[in-house]
Amino acid sequence: MADSKALTTREQDFSAWYNEVIARAELADYSPVRGCMVIRPNGYAIWEHMQRALDRMFKDTGHQNAYFPLFIPQSFLSREAEHVEGFAPETAVVTHGGGKELEEPLVVRPTSETIIYAMYAKWIQSYRDLPLLINQWANVVRWEMRTRLFLRTTEFLWQEGHTAHATEADAEEETLRMLGVYRTFMEEWMAMPVLTGRKTDSERFAGALRTYSCEALMQDNRALQAGTSHNLGQNFARAFEVTFQTEEGSLDFVWNTSWGVSTRLVGALIMTHSDDKGLVCPPRLAQWQVVIVPIYRTDSERATVLEAAERIRRELVAADIRVHLDARDGMKPGAKYYEWEARGVPLRLEVGPRDVAAGTVMLARRTGGGKDSLPMTGLAPRLAAEMDAMQRSLLDAALARREAASVRGASKEQFIEIMEGAGGFVYGGFCGSAACEAEIKERTKATIRVLPDAEFRSPVAPTHCLWCNGPSVSEAVWAKAY
Amino acid sequence: MADSKALTTREQDFSAWYNEVIARAELADYSPVRGCMVIRPNGYAIWEHMQRALDRMFKDTGHQNAYFPLFIPQSFLSREAEHVEGFAPETAVVTHGGGKELEEPLVVRPTSETIIYAMYAKWIQSYRDLPLLINQWANVVRWEMRTRLFLRTTEFLWQEGHTAHATEADAEEETLRMLGVYRTFMEEWMAMPVLTGRKTDSERFAGALRTYSCEALMQDNRALQAGTSHNLGQNFARAFEVTFQTEEGSLDFVWNTSWGVSTRLVGALIMTHSDDKGLVCPPRLAQWQVVIVPIYRTDSERATVLEAAERIRRELVAADIRVHLDARDGMKPGAKYYEWEARGVPLRLEVGPRDVAAGTVMLARRTGGGKDSLPMTGLAPRLAAEMDAMQRSLLDAALARREAASVRGASKEQFIEIMEGAGGFVYGGFCGSAACEAEIKERTKATIRVLPDAEFRSPVAPTHCLWCNGPSVSEAVWAKAY
Repeated sequence: MADSKALTTREQDFSAWYNEVIARAELADYSPVRGCMVIRPNGYAIWEHMQRALDRMFKDTGHQNAYFPLFIPQSFLSREAEHVEGFAPETAVVTHGGGKELEEPLVVRPTSETIIYAMYAKWIQSYRDLPLLINQWANVVRWEMRTRLFLRTTEFLWQEGHTAHATEADAEEETLRMLGVYRTFMEEWMAMPVLTGRKTDSERFAGALRTYSCEALMQDNRALQAGTSHNLGQNFARAFEVTFQTEEGSLDFVWNTSWGVSTRLVGALIMTHSDDKGLVCPPRLAQWQVVIVPIYRTDSERATVLEAAERIRRELVAADIRVHLDARDGMKPGAKYYEWEARGVPLRLEVGPRDVAAGTVMLARRTGGGKDSLPMTGLAPRLAAEMDAMQRSLLDAALARREAASVRGASKEQFIEIMEGAGGFVYGGFCGSAACEAEIKERTKATIRVLPDAEFRSPVAPTHCLWCNGPSVSEAVWAKAY
Repeated sequence: MADSKALTTREQDFSAWYNEVIARAELADYSPVRGCMVIRPNGYAIWEHMQRALDRMFKDTGHQNAYFPLFIPQSFLSREAEHVEGFAPETAVVTHGGGKELEEPLVVRPTSETIIYAMYAKWIQSYRDLPLLINQWANVVRWEMRTRLFLRTTEFLWQEGHTAHATEADAEEETLRMLGVYRTFMEEWMAMPVLTGRKTDSERFAGALRTYSCEALMQDNRALQAGTSHNLGQNFARAFEVTFQTEEGSLDFVWNTSWGVSTRLVGALIMTHSDDKGLVCPPRLAQWQVVIVPIYRTDSERATVLEAAERIRRELVAADIRVHLDARDGMKPGAKYYEWEARGVPLRLEVGPRDVAAGTVMLARRTGGGKDSLPMTGLAPRLAAEMDAMQRSLLDAALARREAASVRGASKEQFIEIMEGAGGFVYGGFCGSAACEAEIKERTKATIRVLPDAEFRSPVAPTHCLWCNGPSVSEAVWAKAY
């Protein structure tokens, strides 16, 4: 319900602001279970729209959905050495079932490589069975010490794609294809610009050959890893004996990839666009794209206005616009405006008796300012155009903010100053040494987010490591991260 | 991949047949985790179509989706006395997290009443917050001793609706509304007729006031509980202190309902329609509704035929028909027919060089017999009509089978004979005594599936209990059940 107290501002306390935006918009709530959140209908609707768009993109690139067990025998996790080291410390373990102690404890999946590749070993015999392109929508559990709504919770929802290929080149192509799908989704649906590139070994997925990532910059100038795509090489194929007969008749291990995004994206969306009035949601992912607020004083005005509002609602529904008519009695229009602003509805239509008489409605935009009186006729295409423009300008604004917070060619001293101060992305040379990387993290809390893809690299490649001044092997992008 | 061995027939061994249909169509597989199955892409596609249809129906009746934690504190389960008795023995328990023993063990949700109503207590203050209409798509775990693919597995996927209302009448109306939604879905989408009615106390959901059910009859004349809808009364509201201020200003407990269907429905679909050639799937839920098999000998025939097949494919896609072009080389058309029959594709189009020359295609139906040569022009509406007819005739056939296996007015001796023999639904009077009900179950394994709703009751109400000959309080329908 509407709470009339103003939100803490981003300036005052970004973290408090974030929590208040979520509470005010009723997106999620803390649960009585340590580290687990409840995704409330307003938040879940955003996730559903994300799912629908991503699922369509996965299917258009040849993937099918399936479902694998929640539980993984503890011994499976241990078969890939790096994998168990990475995940075992943060697992939840089932030791009892049906009133009895289990012979072998079961781990609640933190990720499903092991159980899925155990099945692939059964299903794949020949090169004819490849590529195998499967995705799963599921919940996973990672025991987190410090949790934060959407961003880091013990249980979260995600999708995990798992594919098997005949050659390393096919696997690499798939890994990069899905990184591209994520980027497209984040830019076109979330209006969130991302840097793409490869992770260094220290940030690589436990068990992968190479990890690629989409990295976004939040309004507090901290980076958020928004999606990752892994070329797993033959590591898991060896561990689970996933072999196939090649076209030439020999036996080989398959090449795997896995890739995932999670409900963390809802947190990323909030922190990318929202303002001190509450949630700002890109129109393509909004639960309601348009809210209609009727304005009236008398019963006869009420009847006239509601009839017009309902007519508009039906017209917009017919045009596939997600519209809600807020016909609650006993609540002033201003209070409704305030509530729908906090909930991030992109467009608001106000309909009063004079509007009905004039055949107009008043349009108010959640972002991009101003009110406009519009004719009732031709409203649907006009609002669709408004939403397209808003979707574009949210992306443009986020891109501009990111670039304003990106620094190239900083010295070591400037780097430290930036990481201790305003934050943001710093581009610089990297010597390739894990020790240097660790020292930077220790000293500044900044990590290499990606070794950026070609299009994000600086026009002139840095020649020396930003930190140790040794020869640079690759440009890198640093930031403090969520 | 295609296995050329004929399936065990339903007549020979229904249970073996069922498993073979699933294996041959690659719908599901056993996993290395005891009692947990893997839902393979062909099976998951059916579940996705089910989800989409149900989700639309839930939203059309005012429900929103949300997501609640997988884990439930063990103490929560105990707050409702019947509930803990019903579910505690079959739970999986997490005792360790992040490498440490937990202070309070967490139960993996067997159903979510307790955790959800704990949240409702926080969210609901006033009658203005009611009704609260929420649904969740989730996985649940019930530790089962004897498992069976889709029908009874330790983990399964389902949806659970959870609503809160201001009055008992509102809750009862919701309970029956959702029972009706389930029935409509089962009849119109699954082509599966169901009896609806109330459960006796001994078959009631643990913690409910009243449980209603949709009961279907499988081809082996055993009943399957396909969906349940519970009026929970104020039981959970009292246990979790979910109170609200009434319009009159007093404080009252809310009235709750819950209702669910699961991946068990995929098993029900298989056992309702499939035949000795494999899966039969109603067109509205089929992964592929139409498969196109090109027929050719020479390279030039291949080019001509594939071009025509691809043209047809695009035309059907444009008409929203789910069509697959099976262009695999090196596999004979007959082998393809065999494989797609086992996978339950409703319609098959065969396209050869002579068809292309004549501007026709050959249509073969998975059920309802015969092949027809059809003109290529106007194919999409023709196939849509074929599918409508098939959808209807599958329902009619299932209804006829059920009625042929339903007996009204049987004597006690006949009842025993039926339950020891062919099985099916037996309608008869019931004295209302739990002892009588238990004795019947003990003696014949048959249980009361429902006290049927008015439209399913016999024209003349039975006057005496079918078993003890005492006065009948209600007609009942018995069967041996899955």
